[in-house]
Amino acid sequence: MTIVTLLSDFGTQDEYVGVMKGVIAGINPDARVVDITHSIEPQDITHGAYILAAAYRYFPAGTLHVAVVDPGVGGARRILAVECHGHRFLAPDNGLLERVLTDSSDSVVVSVQDRRYYLERVSDTFHGRDIFAPVAARLAAGLPLAALGPVIDRQRIVSGAVPRWRFSTPRCIDGIVVAVDRFGNLMTNIEAAAIHTLSLQGADGRLTVEIADKRIDGIGHAYDQVHRFSPLAIIGSRGLLEISVNRGDARRTLGVEKNDRVRVCLTEDD
Amino acid sequence: MTIVTLLSDFGTQDEYVGVMKGVIAGINPDARVVDITHSIEPQDITHGAYILAAAYRYFPAGTLHVAVVDPGVGGARRILAVECHGHRFLAPDNGLLERVLTDSSDSVVVSVQDRRYYLERVSDTFHGRDIFAPVAARLAAGLPLAALGPVIDRQRIVSGAVPRWRFSTPRCIDGIVVAVDRFGNLMTNIEAAAIHTLSLQGADGRLTVEIADKRIDGIGHAYDQVHRFSPLAIIGSRGLLEISVNRGDARRTLGVEKNDRVRVCLTEDD
Amino acid sequence: MTIVTLLSDFGTQDEYVGVMKGVIAGINPDARVVDITHSIEPQDITHGAYILAAAYRYFPAGTLHVAVVDPGVGGARRILAVECHGHRFLAPDNGLLERVLTDSSDSVVVSVQDRRYYLERVSDTFHGRDIFAPVAARLAAGLPLAALGPVIDRQRIVSGAVPRWRFSTPRCIDGIVVAVDRFGNLMTNIEAAAIHTLSLQGADGRLTVEIADKRIDGIGHAYDQVHRFSPLAIIGSRGLLEISVNRGDARRTLGVEKNDRVRVCLTEDD
Repeated sequence: MTIVTLLSDFGTQDEYVGVMKGVIAGINPDARVVDITHSIEPQDITHGAYILAAAYRYFPAGTLHVAVVDPGVGGARRILAVECHGHRFLAPDNGLLERVLTDSSDSVVVSVQDRRYYLERVSDTFHGRDIFAPVAARLAAGLPLAALGPVIDRQRIVSGAVPRWRFSTPRCIDGIVVAVDRFGNLMTNIEAAAIHTLSLQGADGRLTVEIADKRIDGIGHAYDQVHRFSPLAIIGSRGLLEISVNRGDARRTLGVEKNDRVRVCLTEDD
Repeated sequence: MTIVTLLSDFGTQDEYVGVMKGVIAGINPDARVVDITHSIEPQDITHGAYILAAAYRYFPAGTLHVAVVDPGVGGARRILAVECHGHRFLAPDNGLLERVLTDSSDSVVVSVQDRRYYLERVSDTFHGRDIFAPVAARLAAGLPLAALGPVIDRQRIVSGAVPRWRFSTPRCIDGIVVAVDRFGNLMTNIEAAAIHTLSLQGADGRLTVEIADKRIDGIGHAYDQVHRFSPLAIIGSRGLLEISVNRGDARRTLGVEKNDRVRVCLTEDD
Repeated sequence: MTIVTLLSDFGTQDEYVGVMKGVIAGINPDARVVDITHSIEPQDITHGAYILAAAYRYFPAGTLHVAVVDPGVGGARRILAVECHGHRFLAPDNGLLERVLTDSSDSVVVSVQDRRYYLERVSDTFHGRDIFAPVAARLAAGLPLAALGPVIDRQRIVSGAVPRWRFSTPRCIDGIVVAVDRFGNLMTNIEAAAIHTLSLQGADGRLTVEIADKRIDGIGHAYDQVHRFSPLAIIGSRGLLEISVNRGDARRTLGVEKNDRVRVCLTEDD
């Protein structure tokens, strides 16, 4: 039994995800399909890339992760099958795997090309059903990655499509809000490691977070470190900087939306 | 192991679908339940009928499809168990199976009546839990269709409840928008076969699609056949005419809603 | 094979639920996870408590129900593992199990404390992943409740957090709207038993339901007992009083929202 996870921007309002599961079950009845989420914002590769990277590691080694956020479906973009970190991935070559491949030195990347593993009729608009699902079913049944097509060099795949944090000054990191969760928590693309690096710049400094026109002092770890309905910055459960409001909704309280800027600075104690 | 699919207008915001799965698991632990979708518009039989017809064929033969869009629950409407196209179906007799039964010459239709297969207490408001789920669990465990009640003639079941395309002139087909998907693609009730028939009317003509006050020339097959943010008509992955906007949202761009009219005409080349 | 149900306010737009399933599958591949719903209103313990109580009994005995509506995550609140009514439950000690524990004389309540059964790193913001999922996986694999921590007295757990119906006069019951379902049906916290008790107060009286500025005569059992688009009061499929509109949407028609008051009175026949 192999676990096959699905992550997509298909939503669940249509039959798309159900149909993918039907195709998988028809080819490989032993595959166990688990939804990560299908609510990636339509065609938002950045959102998908960060959520996939946050989620995959909580599945057992050997899991196959199928990620379909694919605005280029039916066009010339490649489909990749990847092995890294002890997991396997199937996704369009558009940056969706960028955050997963980070820090992976031993990855294998294959360009999926062998049409024998697709459905017999392949539409130009729903490769999730016609390519991703049947290929996933076969990978989960033991088909080796290399059967799908040529191994390609990691330098040849799409990169730089997904915005990352960066130092804007020696003592400031800039990032963006990548997702807003159901509770209104703002998930950024600023990693815990980045903040750790920043804090090493000066032992006497303290960290402040700027978002919208607000300034938040310090970075915490639990919601109840601040009063109810007060904002706080936190290293969230994904290892990324998040902005929350204790028992409230940070998006609404702060008037912040996806893609808005976040800055973390090391400031001198007064 | 039998696959039981669920399609309904229950949504997933309430516990209705989870409870149906609980009932099925209690009676038949080997049934494997797969959701097609629970976001059929409330009480929209037409929407359900087209989505079910598009989805069922991607599941393995022998699958049992349970479809519950049931505004007449608790009233006098029948419940049908049907075998056709190598699949089985369980649904209220209100048109929901109309698109599935099309082109099926060898269907068996049973009127579900034997209360021994229901839950002991049957409410008047949630037959999904009290009738559909326990009956489905037993069918999936091998109970023959005929055990549920009398075989009835296909002429006696509800028909004509679901709007279909039609020729409005010898060179024009009229249909409607049946569903709008998450991406804003407009799915119509005009089948590929209808368009093929139309195109046979005149070898020199070309097809045009009229929707809202827009006119789209030609029918394509892939989104990137037009420029970004331009509309196109396409035979979608379901074998139905769809109106899309490349990398955009056709509903918003065209200002079109469900039930709006679509016309496809064969026009003379100028 | 043990069934593990999940009920939460996590939604499915984020990866939270998928990640919990990944953790469970990694520890106990035989657990079968079924979603009850993840659309409990954020942090609405009352909503969760009533939905859980309505849903759990439709699962087979021995099912483990994991309920996470947990505004106090990361704070001092306890986590409870409970056995009652032949089912097991895992939930924060905040009232979420209050409706389940009602009328249960033989319950066992354990305070979950043994960190050996948690993930190695426990965040302060996502105990669903770090505590509930791994503990659930182990309970489903046969770990006895008592291994998790000390048995505690039922009197010591949180109670009174969830509003219940009450007699406001000898002939009137007051309750509130606890949830509005996808169809706009208004689910109240007034139980069938309460209405039965009320009706015993006077054999000559008849029941009327007051909600918003509307008065509904009588309590029915099926939608089609009234004309289309007329409101009715009904003992719904959960055994709770519901206000519906036949083939319509009671929330919209009546302008009622969650937490609005409902009164049922026994009035003299004129």
